Amino acid sequence: MIAIPEKADLKRCDVAQLEKLCADMRQEIIQTVAANGGHLSSSLGCVELITALHYVFDIPAEPLIFDVGHQALAHKLLTGRAGKFATLRQAGGISGFPCPAESGADTGISGHAGVAISQAIGLADGRAANATPGKVIALLGDGAMTCGISWEGLNSAAGRKNLVIILNDNNMAIAKNVGALARYLNHIISGARYNQLKEKVRIFLQTHKTLYRAASKIDDFLKSALMPPSTIFQELGIRYIGPVHGHDLAELIPIFRQVRDNIHAPVLIHVVTTKGKGCDFAERSPEIYHGISGCDPVTGAMKKSSATNFSKAFGEKLTELGKTHPELEAISASMLDGTGLTPFQKAYPERCHDVGIEEEHAVAYAAGLAMAHRRVVVALYSTFAQRALDNIYHDVALAKLPVIFALDRAGIVADGPTHHGIYDLGFLREMPDMEILSPATELELKAMLDYLMTVKLPAVIRYPRGSSHCDRVPSPIVRGRAELLREGKDLVIWALGTMTQTALESAEILAASGIQSTVINTRFIKPFDDELAKRFAATPMLTLEDHHTSGGLGAALEESLGGIVHAPVLRCGWSENAPIPHGDTDAVKKQYQLDAASVAARAKTFLTTIPE
Amino acid sequence: MIAIPEKADLKRCDVAQLEKLCADMRQEIIQTVAANGGHLSSSLGCVELITALHYVFDIPAEPLIFDVGHQALAHKLLTGRAGKFATLRQAGGISGFPCPAESGADTGISGHAGVAISQAIGLADGRAANATPGKVIALLGDGAMTCGISWEGLNSAAGRKNLVIILNDNNMAIAKNVGALARYLNHIISGARYNQLKEKVRIFLQTHKTLYRAASKIDDFLKSALMPPSTIFQELGIRYIGPVHGHDLAELIPIFRQVRDNIHAPVLIHVVTTKGKGCDFAERSPEIYHGISGCDPVTGAMKKSSATNFSKAFGEKLTELGKTHPELEAISASMLDGTGLTPFQKAYPERCHDVGIEEEHAVAYAAGLAMAHRRVVVALYSTFAQRALDNIYHDVALAKLPVIFALDRAGIVADGPTHHGIYDLGFLREMPDMEILSPATELELKAMLDYLMTVKLPAVIRYPRGSSHCDRVPSPIVRGRAELLREGKDLVIWALGTMTQTALESAEILAASGIQSTVINTRFIKPFDDELAKRFAATPMLTLEDHHTSGGLGAALEESLGGIVHAPVLRCGWSENAPIPHGDTDAVKKQYQLDAASVAARAKTFLTTIPE
Repeated sequence: MIAIPEKADLKRCDVAQLEKLCADMRQEIIQTVAANGGHLSSSLGCVELITALHYVFDIPAEPLIFDVGHQALAHKLLTGRAGKFATLRQAGGISGFPCPAESGADTGISGHAGVAISQAIGLADGRAANATPGKVIALLGDGAMTCGISWEGLNSAAGRKNLVIILNDNNMAIAKNVGALARYLNHIISGARYNQLKEKVRIFLQTHKTLYRAASKIDDFLKSALMPPSTIFQELGIRYIGPVHGHDLAELIPIFRQVRDNIHAPVLIHVVTTKGKGCDFAERSPEIYHGISGCDPVTGAMKKSSATNFSKAFGEKLTELGKTHPELEAISASMLDGTGLTPFQKAYPERCHDVGIEEEHAVAYAAGLAMAHRRVVVALYSTFAQRALDNIYHDVALAKLPVIFALDRAGIVADGPTHHGIYDLGFLREMPDMEILSPATELELKAMLDYLMTVKLPAVIRYPRGSSHCDRVPSPIVRGRAELLREGKDLVIWALGTMTQTALESAEILAASGIQSTVINTRFIKPFDDELAKRFAATPMLTLEDHHTSGGLGAALEESLGGIVHAPVLRCGWSENAPIPHGDTDAVKKQYQLDAASVAARAKTFLTTIPE
Repeated sequence: MIAIPEKADLKRCDVAQLEKLCADMRQEIIQTVAANGGHLSSSLGCVELITALHYVFDIPAEPLIFDVGHQALAHKLLTGRAGKFATLRQAGGISGFPCPAESGADTGISGHAGVAISQAIGLADGRAANATPGKVIALLGDGAMTCGISWEGLNSAAGRKNLVIILNDNNMAIAKNVGALARYLNHIISGARYNQLKEKVRIFLQTHKTLYRAASKIDDFLKSALMPPSTIFQELGIRYIGPVHGHDLAELIPIFRQVRDNIHAPVLIHVVTTKGKGCDFAERSPEIYHGISGCDPVTGAMKKSSATNFSKAFGEKLTELGKTHPELEAISASMLDGTGLTPFQKAYPERCHDVGIEEEHAVAYAAGLAMAHRRVVVALYSTFAQRALDNIYHDVALAKLPVIFALDRAGIVADGPTHHGIYDLGFLREMPDMEILSPATELELKAMLDYLMTVKLPAVIRYPRGSSHCDRVPSPIVRGRAELLREGKDLVIWALGTMTQTALESAEILAASGIQSTVINTRFIKPFDDELAKRFAATPMLTLEDHHTSGGLGAALEESLGGIVHAPVLRCGWSENAPIPHGDTDAVKKQYQLDAASVAARAKTFLTTIPE
């Protein structure tokens, strides 16, 4: 286990000792993430930055809010979690993200990008109202800076005396950063010498207070002639310091001290780092090692999965469709690789758009493309689609535009509460003119995409991370029709997506006890197969879904049966009024009785409660 | 009826004729909105701007996308809808917003702010892919410019040759605009003479092409010494023209022509206008006349409503609570007046935060304040809360922060589909640790706010526009308990919010036919009153709600009864797979059989379908 100095001891270290500590932490992070999976490149990129922050500021009395906790592993090591570090991302172990419930050192929820500035402004204002001294620090990557909400925060930051924004700029979001702002930040960096000159002018003026006050009073025209042109951040009322070398503790520490002691205005410190720093393979391929399931700690070799999975199948099929549909366009929000779009991007670069971490823009942009009669697929993770629900309603559904939303990672994921994709259906099922499908297997996903190309309405197709491990050949996809996979008189199991395989296994287990089950692969959450629902309405029903039961399949089935006399329905899915934890998804499902054996047991108990 | 020239004739008008047309249209807008209600000040502010756009561009072959259709009335008059203008906002008449289903001249859905740039970029790219000539024009107000999604759009605009962004800057969002960007725009305007000089330099350089090319090649440092400092927009790769006098056709027309013919790059034209222009009372009080229910067309006098309403009751109660709770803070997204917060703002200016049209920031900011142990109420319209659902989940619910979301305009509204507040519950009911309440009357709203101050968890309280017209004294609010208002053996009516009054009326009607009803005021959508649900589970049930039936009360009741044998439930609410139209809300409810008589009739039919 790595030796981490106590807070007081850390503050007494010299730079050489801190550098040694950073090297040790970097190795610990590589070893642990290689073994357990997690976010590697981004955490490696800010080891010195986080160490310098802890060295200078009084964290957490001065709270540090991470914008997307991809970067937080060094912070976890420095705040009492080195001893548990081997449990990273394991069920019952420490989370891969900052987690206030796990440690008082973690402030704010940090799984979705762009929120740190706004959270930090609120915390800064609240602390000012309470007369609490000290700074509030928001640490964000340049990817987060492209999110609209970051700009909403920047628009509101002016005037806060206790607000420090650290922009950790590695010119990468999850993938290579895109858009005008990324170019702008590069432009600043490439003009660094010039900026240093500018900073020197400012420091000179500040040291000579009279001159500074005089300079402040002269009118804008003269000032802009005298003073160098300012950055966007300064235009928004935020002091800009940078660029700063983010792996050089000797450069970081004095700047942080200066900010802590002498700046009483909102300030943005532009720190330049290398994503994956200090780990050859992660530096070479920062996107591939952004988030991994595990790898060889020396070579970076990842277990090759020869099996297909939903993301791969999606990418393959879309690439195939791109050939016959020259009007087909695909949009991703910094997730080309994660959503499987890379082959499509390679085949049709001009029709593949990575808009950066801008889900709202992605959807409104898709609406515009569709208005021009382009056929658009927007590939998002379910959890991030939450950021664009209003656009799905307002820009797409109300206009009846035939945009296809491909929601990957629909269902729980190893990353935990901030990333579970189990809430989308509650809202989406209400959307006008929306079709919603969920495939049980990769082959069915491909068949459904063929079907969706014929639909002239907004549509959602949702599927989980990983593979179904099932190569059943799907029956033809027919609008609003479920697939009847097995018939039995005692119980009807309606299953959604890959839970269909679990349902079939449960049915086998039940059959061994003499309980005969019907198993239905729902396929269409909307339009729902009302006819089949009515046909089996007299038999006790069980719904099985990797979604919250308030808004998903269970809700859809009962809505379909609404107003008619029917047998009771037991909803199996995520029904908790609490977040679902992180960890291996099979283990978490078992813990929550969503594995085949548990479902069979629940079904048995359920059937005993029903009067003959 | 106003005489509007045909498109070809319009293009032959001279400036004097156009000015006359603008004056006539302005009068028509004042008269019609005074009679029918609608968005007055913003539409008056851009009559010349819209006329000049139609004069120069080939609309809709060159599409014009409005960002929030508040401004669109002159556009409606100019595109074949003068004859129907008297039906503005009436059931079956023309919508108060641009509406593609109403006219081919309307492009894109324009009810929520900030989406026009992204939609326009998509449309511009799609048209470029199709080799369609001409420009795509996005028209937005300075309020929309503060929305994060506008920045996501600006971040992606660079390189588009056919994109024209018109920024109609009146220094007002719905209310006075706020934030650093508004100050920045003012700063540009106040430096206008300087900017004109800058534009002259550019035009000079462009006219002398060789010189221009030479200037383009010199390095940034020298260029910024030679050329005046650029705007934020130019930093993002967008040409900036402005400020332009937005009521001067003679200034607008040549600039638009120049852009149409000679600029082959994304361009932002910064037009300065006066909100309410040409109407004394609207110019004096642009916020009050932003959106009105109707007024005297000469004096602007509005019908005084002495009755209370939910927004007023909310503001009164919050102001009262502010006295005893010095830690209470309120946040609005440019809706201080609409949500009833004005008295709170007057009483506690330092604890009331209008963040502009930035719903995501509003929620993440609230999370930050709550982390500092401030007690925060975020007041939003239900439809705009859709823009922050992810933040409600990620920033507030996951952190279990006790933020209260007060969702006004929950239920249908006269404005129509873009503004109906009938979708929030589908998602919110899934949120961990969230309490959700809905009061039947203003008095109950106040009692519920007292209750909510004792709750240490995230909570939502939702209520419609207008008044309950009911002064029943509420029984004490008890967590998770519904209110039993009437008992009868034949039918149980569960009602949500103000639909409780409708339920009581329906029960009276049914009683006249010998059908005895129980009426329950649900109060808590979450935690639901499972005990009461089970008590009445053997009696046929009807749910009545001003929300979509997929995710609202009907869904909650059936979830509560999940797994047990129960009598059937008829869900009455918005169950359509299509948008609900605009118009007087009582009339629309009647059309969709949600008035007391229709509900009674539906209940009767329902009861006949149930076997004894």
